[in-house]
Amino acid sequence: MTTTTVPQPSEELTERMHELYRHLHAHPELSMQEHATAELIERELDALGVEHFRCGGTGVVGVLRNGQGPVVAFRADTDGLPLAEDTGLDYASTATGRLEDGTEVPVMHGCGHDTHVAVLLTAARLLAGAREAWSGTLVLVFQPGEETAAGAQAMLADGLWERAPRPEVVLGQHVMPQLAGTIHCSVGDAMAMADSWRVTVHGKGAHASQPQDATDPIVLGAHIITRLQTVVAREVDPRRSAVVTVGTFHGGLKENIIPARAEFTLNVRTLDPEVREHVLGALRRIISAEAAASGAPEPTVEVLSTFPRNYNDPAATTELLEHFRRELGEERVVQVDPLMGSEDFGALGAAIGVPSVFWMFGGHDAATLAGEGPVPVNHSPFFAPAVEPTLSTGVRAAVVAILARLGR
Amino acid sequence: MTTTTVPQPSEELTERMHELYRHLHAHPELSMQEHATAELIERELDALGVEHFRCGGTGVVGVLRNGQGPVVAFRADTDGLPLAEDTGLDYASTATGRLEDGTEVPVMHGCGHDTHVAVLLTAARLLAGAREAWSGTLVLVFQPGEETAAGAQAMLADGLWERAPRPEVVLGQHVMPQLAGTIHCSVGDAMAMADSWRVTVHGKGAHASQPQDATDPIVLGAHIITRLQTVVAREVDPRRSAVVTVGTFHGGLKENIIPARAEFTLNVRTLDPEVREHVLGALRRIISAEAAASGAPEPTVEVLSTFPRNYNDPAATTELLEHFRRELGEERVVQVDPLMGSEDFGALGAAIGVPSVFWMFGGHDAATLAGEGPVPVNHSPFFAPAVEPTLSTGVRAAVVAILARLGR
Amino acid sequence: MTTTTVPQPSEELTERMHELYRHLHAHPELSMQEHATAELIERELDALGVEHFRCGGTGVVGVLRNGQGPVVAFRADTDGLPLAEDTGLDYASTATGRLEDGTEVPVMHGCGHDTHVAVLLTAARLLAGAREAWSGTLVLVFQPGEETAAGAQAMLADGLWERAPRPEVVLGQHVMPQLAGTIHCSVGDAMAMADSWRVTVHGKGAHASQPQDATDPIVLGAHIITRLQTVVAREVDPRRSAVVTVGTFHGGLKENIIPARAEFTLNVRTLDPEVREHVLGALRRIISAEAAASGAPEPTVEVLSTFPRNYNDPAATTELLEHFRRELGEERVVQVDPLMGSEDFGALGAAIGVPSVFWMFGGHDAATLAGEGPVPVNHSPFFAPAVEPTLSTGVRAAVVAILARLGR
Amino acid sequence: MTTTTVPQPSEELTERMHELYRHLHAHPELSMQEHATAELIERELDALGVEHFRCGGTGVVGVLRNGQGPVVAFRADTDGLPLAEDTGLDYASTATGRLEDGTEVPVMHGCGHDTHVAVLLTAARLLAGAREAWSGTLVLVFQPGEETAAGAQAMLADGLWERAPRPEVVLGQHVMPQLAGTIHCSVGDAMAMADSWRVTVHGKGAHASQPQDATDPIVLGAHIITRLQTVVAREVDPRRSAVVTVGTFHGGLKENIIPARAEFTLNVRTLDPEVREHVLGALRRIISAEAAASGAPEPTVEVLSTFPRNYNDPAATTELLEHFRRELGEERVVQVDPLMGSEDFGALGAAIGVPSVFWMFGGHDAATLAGEGPVPVNHSPFFAPAVEPTLSTGVRAAVVAILARLGR
Repeated sequence: MTTTTVPQPSEELTERMHELYRHLHAHPELSMQEHATAELIERELDALGVEHFRCGGTGVVGVLRNGQGPVVAFRADTDGLPLAEDTGLDYASTATGRLEDGTEVPVMHGCGHDTHVAVLLTAARLLAGAREAWSGTLVLVFQPGEETAAGAQAMLADGLWERAPRPEVVLGQHVMPQLAGTIHCSVGDAMAMADSWRVTVHGKGAHASQPQDATDPIVLGAHIITRLQTVVAREVDPRRSAVVTVGTFHGGLKENIIPARAEFTLNVRTLDPEVREHVLGALRRIISAEAAASGAPEPTVEVLSTFPRNYNDPAATTELLEHFRRELGEERVVQVDPLMGSEDFGALGAAIGVPSVFWMFGGHDAATLAGEGPVPVNHSPFFAPAVEPTLSTGVRAAVVAILARLGR
Repeated sequence: MTTTTVPQPSEELTERMHELYRHLHAHPELSMQEHATAELIERELDALGVEHFRCGGTGVVGVLRNGQGPVVAFRADTDGLPLAEDTGLDYASTATGRLEDGTEVPVMHGCGHDTHVAVLLTAARLLAGAREAWSGTLVLVFQPGEETAAGAQAMLADGLWERAPRPEVVLGQHVMPQLAGTIHCSVGDAMAMADSWRVTVHGKGAHASQPQDATDPIVLGAHIITRLQTVVAREVDPRRSAVVTVGTFHGGLKENIIPARAEFTLNVRTLDPEVREHVLGALRRIISAEAAASGAPEPTVEVLSTFPRNYNDPAATTELLEHFRRELGEERVVQVDPLMGSEDFGALGAAIGVPSVFWMFGGHDAATLAGEGPVPVNHSPFFAPAVEPTLSTGVRAAVVAILARLGR
Repeated sequence: MTTTTVPQPSEELTERMHELYRHLHAHPELSMQEHATAELIERELDALGVEHFRCGGTGVVGVLRNGQGPVVAFRADTDGLPLAEDTGLDYASTATGRLEDGTEVPVMHGCGHDTHVAVLLTAARLLAGAREAWSGTLVLVFQPGEETAAGAQAMLADGLWERAPRPEVVLGQHVMPQLAGTIHCSVGDAMAMADSWRVTVHGKGAHASQPQDATDPIVLGAHIITRLQTVVAREVDPRRSAVVTVGTFHGGLKENIIPARAEFTLNVRTLDPEVREHVLGALRRIISAEAAASGAPEPTVEVLSTFPRNYNDPAATTELLEHFRRELGEERVVQVDPLMGSEDFGALGAAIGVPSVFWMFGGHDAATLAGEGPVPVNHSPFFAPAVEPTLSTGVRAAVVAILARLGR
Repeated sequence: MTTTTVPQPSEELTERMHELYRHLHAHPELSMQEHATAELIERELDALGVEHFRCGGTGVVGVLRNGQGPVVAFRADTDGLPLAEDTGLDYASTATGRLEDGTEVPVMHGCGHDTHVAVLLTAARLLAGAREAWSGTLVLVFQPGEETAAGAQAMLADGLWERAPRPEVVLGQHVMPQLAGTIHCSVGDAMAMADSWRVTVHGKGAHASQPQDATDPIVLGAHIITRLQTVVAREVDPRRSAVVTVGTFHGGLKENIIPARAEFTLNVRTLDPEVREHVLGALRRIISAEAAASGAPEPTVEVLSTFPRNYNDPAATTELLEHFRRELGEERVVQVDPLMGSEDFGALGAAIGVPSVFWMFGGHDAATLAGEGPVPVNHSPFFAPAVEPTLSTGVRAAVVAILARLGR
């Protein structure tokens, strides 16, 4: 592949992408409920003559064949967030959705997955129109439910790699609050594994004046949380990364009643599977032992979600970074430390033992980044990427990465 | 006073009392909203020709004068609880009321204040009809809002002892889940002081994967609760009594977000004012210092309620116990340790520096006490005193105690 | 018994007692090594013609028979302390002794047991010379090793009550830093039970920079101590008494090495056997569970000493207090709360199920008590009771108490 | 520089080095007391005709000049450890020394500094005899007192870089328990900064039964240690490294006395100066606040030692690693993570703002590494490097690194 072979979108195609993006932004859907989004994607693939199939409920897989050659998969996630948009954009979302428990909530593309979809459809259109520039097969994976760590698993469980051609690499990208026009990528660990648990500690209630008749679940919970600090502080190699956050703690209704139970939720971040294994074991050990210290029954531990490893194959990534540097310019490609945030992208390649590469593309213009006040980050109600050069950079990165494998 | 001079209620009066009790039980009202109860009391006092005045909103004070002699005050509290009655009685409450925030809730006489009102009105009727047996003045204090510690303060603030004759002693009694027909009383401390606080700890929120950008209020709260254990364990004379209960702890909405604040409520029980002073000071010291240990701002401490000392004057109580033993029988009068529960009764006498005596009368028959499962205690939705001998014992105790001072 | 029948010591007898006291004070011996003291006691009993036998090593039991009548036992403890006397008295101790491990240490009668011995020998001499005033049998129990909780057990194990006449009551007294001439006594619990343990926590050592390779016994110990605070704070009825003190903690030799073990000692005080049972169980539960929370082996718990209950039989004590008040004057007899300090006296009566009574007699003159600086208490190197009226009050209390049972 | 220009030691020179090494090993000296070692080094430098001067007490600086060219400094540390050697070698140490407090202790070259001295003297002899292969100036820094972090500071304070030619780079190496014949080196951080403190917490003593009269320093110490766990767990970016170890905790003499003070020592490891700054600040904040939570006075914090940053200049290190790979073979040069252990080497270059590079050379043969039981590491009484190929590899690495700068 050389620079000259990378096709550029026409003005018309760029305009089409912007329109598509604004439509997606205005019509976000909650995780695993991306019905209209899936239908839109299907219509677009039909228009390109790309064969496709549903996978994992609201997931869509397109297969763009172009003769002999390797198979490359590219993934875009499609879901929005239960968030009330506050960007003031004229294409801002007014959509609502229903949570699992039936509550109606506002929905927003607050994590920028709308850019992912618009970019991948546009890249597909560009490549479909430039078949002379490449050969092989491109598998387009439009994945639902990234936010809940449900989507990648659902597609794998629904036979993704039995039904689509098996790729030699899985690629993906994410818009982030860095400077639009730049690419950020780490070699090796890309993002953290994340494990979330709900822990219910069971005690025995009593009147506040009679602690001797109670097994106080709030005191127990407090001692568990205190004790959990030793896991990261004393049990993890200081050169490895781990976080144990207790994000919520709830117990008791009235100050003069010792309640019978309390509940907290944990979120664990690790980069290394061995560290993860050790940390999760230590959490269970401490939760169980602290209950025993209180003379309380074994607490109930419920797994809420598990975000898998997201590992950038060093060889594949190093090679890809060279392509990025050549095609986008040295100064626009930044090698970074792993992020402690999480993604279920990594599961797609890991499931079949093929390497994957995941990078970030910037979404904010210089003015926003230099402005007063905090920069609106992903999951903020104010998160509003600059349309350009964000989208075009996303398209170019995608095409460069695909052609690095499939280019003639 | 001798036994023979204590007047006994007629069968008709007893029947009247039962009717009154059932009516009160069926029509409970929330604290400081005892409007219908106050009107009923006023009608009853009118019927007896007892002068009366409103005091502290829904409080009613009756003054039954009978010639020269000492002044004795007797208090009955009048409020119900926000509780859905589940006794199955045919006179069970179906009433509702509104909490301060407007929420409509079921209301129940779950602490037996209905027995207190019925008993005191009956004792008054008995004494009003037996004027030859005594001389002096009886002040009948029907106090609202005991459950919220608001009522005694409200009556005192509204000039109770400026408007009513100043008594030489203040008497009161409470129905408890002991054997009906028995009296339980401690000499010295009767019940605990209780102080309730709401504490808000202020941190700084961040994503769960970035604790270094947060000041974690859940970790701070856990360390405060852990540290508070040292107050009772290490700072209070082991021969003195103190309880520090954290009844509620609430912080965080989602496992992957470190929240910006958390909130807990405390309930403190002490018997000795010096111990109380020390414990409350130690709590403030620890809450403040632990926030400093986290680098967090000073937490906000809000006082929710303060139940005053309830102290049984030893001389007055010892003398009264002798009367009780003589009139009710040795085996029916039990001297007990102080209760760690709380009451605002003690404030009435303390406000003017006169002694007070407060005792318990049993409310359960032997079968209930011996039955399977837990005995329904005060504040339980199943709390249903045996009408007799509960009420008659209450009347007799009240009359004996009053005549001990005013009897001829 | 009436006042007139209580014999008074002659001036000569008093002078003899002072001499004896000064000799004892100058020649203290360590616990269970009171050889010279035992021989001195034996010589004194021989001089009175009182039969005696050795019991429990350095214990001596004298039996003073005087015809028909009840049997009363009176105990005096005989041991000194490993303490360098700093009183400046001309009869101050310069004695030394050897601890179990062979170390030579200074020895002092720093807890006033010398007064106990001098007083009991003098009371015996007085009664031996006033046989007309009483009839029955007086068992004089000179007990070794009170300070280490070893002596009472040793005498019981050596057949004390099989070899001496079985008493109907066991009496004892202790000099304390209250006003000389006064008696202090509680009804019911007299002093606390005390349990001492040594706990060794086993971890795994490593370099300070590699906590992940260690099981840190100092972090484990700190969490145990933190967690132990909940026992008194949350598991004991606030109206009952309990103390859990960690008196020592030792672990580690160098700041840059995580040690393999740490050691701490515990001292527990309780008044109520049920509370003691619960507290000791809770300690074991927490120590064991916290080790499990660290993934450490079960800690080693070694019992260092056990001081038994010291309970003043209410009927016997109330009766005795009336005698004291009559004979010594109301104002010199003070009813007090139980002390949280400990004594092995209580084991003597408990072993055979007979009541016992134990009281304190003051040892300081008014000037000492009113002086600047802290009053020298028992176990202080400055503890120096005023010889009089301390000793004579002790003799009078002993004789009054004995004659209350044996007096004609 | 090319391979052919790197001079090789003769058999005779190697034999000489072994003899020197065995002599040094048999005669270790304590930190800052390396008198005989310094004299031996001076004699060796004299024999080579290398000018030299004493610096920082027992430090020796040699300056080997060879015409025009750059200046390179190479450092070897010279001190032994207070350790009883247990290697069984026929040249094992039987030396003793005196600690600061006068205690006589056994001394051992338990950290392999004897290899450093023997290797550097041999490399100097080799280069002094091969002047045609290089030009420039080699500064030989024989530094005392590495183990106590005193030596580098002492040499700098004594004018090291004013008296010796200023180098363009400072080099150093350390023997480690890896495979002899291999080199291990990190790019960027090489070893951790280390800060050691002694903290004395001041409370108030009392009898174990009277915690209310005490301010318990053991409970305070336990809560400080518990709270310190939050620093690494919650205040440090999970991708950065930090360790806070409490290596010792000592308080109390007897289980039934609450002591007046307790003492613990801390050891902190960090790689990043900003993280170090934050962690040390957090420790002071927590120590101070926890004392306030106990109502105790401000604890006393004493700095015991400070090991500086040891940073391998990335450009200089990357370049040097290429030389190592070429000269020693790819498979013998391993790029590693930073070590969390500490060294004062880094201060030498940092003091004058010149880059430094520090690497490890293996000291164990394959049999030792594969054997049963733990491999004897540095500071173990069993630490006994295989003489060869350890020493020859050290010489070759030193010469390669020097010639990379000074080679013709």
